[in-house]
Amino acid sequence: MSSFKTIEWKDDRVLMIDQRKLPSEEVYFECLTYEEVAWAIKNMVIRGAPAIGVASAMGIALGAIKSKRKDKVEFLAELKEISTIISKTRPTAVNLFWAVRRMMDLVEENKNNDIDSIKAGLVDEAKKIYEEDIEICRRIGRVGNQLINDGAVVLTHCNAGALATAGYGTALGVVRAAVEDGKNIRVIATETRPLLQGARLTAWELDKDGIPVTLITDNMAGYVMSKGMVDAVIVGADRIASNGDVANKIGTYSLSVLAKFHKIPFYVAAPISTIDYNCSSGGLIPIEERDIKEVTHILGNKITPDVKVLNPAFDITPNENISSIITEKGIARAPFIESLRALVH
Amino acid sequence: MSSFKTIEWKDDRVLMIDQRKLPSEEVYFECLTYEEVAWAIKNMVIRGAPAIGVASAMGIALGAIKSKRKDKVEFLAELKEISTIISKTRPTAVNLFWAVRRMMDLVEENKNNDIDSIKAGLVDEAKKIYEEDIEICRRIGRVGNQLINDGAVVLTHCNAGALATAGYGTALGVVRAAVEDGKNIRVIATETRPLLQGARLTAWELDKDGIPVTLITDNMAGYVMSKGMVDAVIVGADRIASNGDVANKIGTYSLSVLAKFHKIPFYVAAPISTIDYNCSSGGLIPIEERDIKEVTHILGNKITPDVKVLNPAFDITPNENISSIITEKGIARAPFIESLRALVH
Repeated sequence: MSSFKTIEWKDDRVLMIDQRKLPSEEVYFECLTYEEVAWAIKNMVIRGAPAIGVASAMGIALGAIKSKRKDKVEFLAELKEISTIISKTRPTAVNLFWAVRRMMDLVEENKNNDIDSIKAGLVDEAKKIYEEDIEICRRIGRVGNQLINDGAVVLTHCNAGALATAGYGTALGVVRAAVEDGKNIRVIATETRPLLQGARLTAWELDKDGIPVTLITDNMAGYVMSKGMVDAVIVGADRIASNGDVANKIGTYSLSVLAKFHKIPFYVAAPISTIDYNCSSGGLIPIEERDIKEVTHILGNKITPDVKVLNPAFDITPNENISSIITEKGIARAPFIESLRALVH
Repeated sequence: MSSFKTIEWKDDRVLMIDQRKLPSEEVYFECLTYEEVAWAIKNMVIRGAPAIGVASAMGIALGAIKSKRKDKVEFLAELKEISTIISKTRPTAVNLFWAVRRMMDLVEENKNNDIDSIKAGLVDEAKKIYEEDIEICRRIGRVGNQLINDGAVVLTHCNAGALATAGYGTALGVVRAAVEDGKNIRVIATETRPLLQGARLTAWELDKDGIPVTLITDNMAGYVMSKGMVDAVIVGADRIASNGDVANKIGTYSLSVLAKFHKIPFYVAAPISTIDYNCSSGGLIPIEERDIKEVTHILGNKITPDVKVLNPAFDITPNENISSIITEKGIARAPFIESLRALVH
């Protein structure tokens, strides 16, 4: 288990480690209202698809308990509005919509109960999603561990670690499980421009937990692969289409091409809740374009003249570049359309 | 021609636009001694293989005219020492050694002349190397222009522009020549971590000269290629082995693999002086490892915890990933061992 808390429900507040400030400051961001949770998701105080799912659920629970409505119809209408606002924070990670739906399905099931009982049910459900996420990540880790040899060097991109989940990680969950199994594992972390989640978050959490990590800039990935320094690439996912195409942090696609060229296995580790069975291919996944200041400024300093800038937050890795998708229910391999469906039937 | 001066010999001083400070400040770094020139090369006040060649020649000329030796033997010994110091500034760009050798060959030819005449000869030679570099870049541009269609989008890495040469550019020289030929050309510049030469220098010089440029982070290269947004990749070179393997800024190798995968032509533009005919393959080219602070700090701010970091300044692109090498004497294509030799015979 990691030695810090990514997100926590405490005394009717939601606490999140402020990921914008790591690694220079380890401070917690306190949300007293659902609006603050929505702001935190949008502004990446918390990020990572499973962590966003947990935060969304806690946001709805927080909105519910802070509601002053005495009238059931008005209370249910307010919950609907809260869920809509939470849903509009970020477009790509499907775990957000999955968690919102799960919370609102619970509301629907209990709509004949009294308001206090609905509130209590939502808080319990959010805590359950949190607990389940940790257990699911541990299972992903155990499943993925089978694919990792003792002595392996794993290259990862962005942060699919404890900080991206309730607390164990998906891609880094596989690394943690292999380390717990007694294997000697080293990680190469790509810094992951523009927001430097690799340099700031992955390097920080692995270092904190005593797992050896070497940082590289994104453009060194081909170099380290060509030198035989990488045994496997493992990344997380923000959304997986039913055909196995994967939306993940910008740069994942380039890494998948480089891994294929160097005959290095390319694994995606994610919970089943990241699979969007209603989405038939990666081309249909909405890709968030973020503020170009993320590229033009680093830590508040402008690094470039005023020119045109692209800033897609994600890209799509086609299924043919993926060796396996590691989930808590087992490993899916090509043809993914069948193997991903088999995981849930 | 570009609208600024990268390097200039003026009143027995060497002036360089300070490339560490662009684009936020446009200031000139003044060298009164050859030691200052050596410092400027080492610390990347000036960078880019052809520009380093010009700076080295001017450094030797500056050392010569500032020498107080009256004894010929002592004067020649001092010149030898100056050339050794200049040679040790950076290891990869072969233009540096080429320029030093050219200057010292001149000394050898004129060793029976008087000291003042040798000094005057060295200043003339340095100015000649400068003038020739501009003319060579213009020729590279005209040669490369044949490969570029009207309306093309050219992706380039790092800065192989006016700032990397005496004043027209190699890769960007091809772009400038195509624009001067009336073609509508747009450039995608990779920001080029760690030192951000793409974001700071390429974006700046193209914008200044009115050539449309779009900035991306290094890890977006695969994304833009997969979207069909790139018609050709053109990069410079720090050293080219006789078999066509190319040492260039870290990240070039990854781009070459991505270009090959997407069937996009990958061109290297460089003067003949960048070809090291004594080096039979890329594996023999020394790769400079630079201070890890270049990765861990951006504009003086630390972005990462204290973990292991790699910082190779260059990588090797094997000849099989290169469509053509564009030089002032024509275009070389596979098999490069013959085509590169044919350029000089």
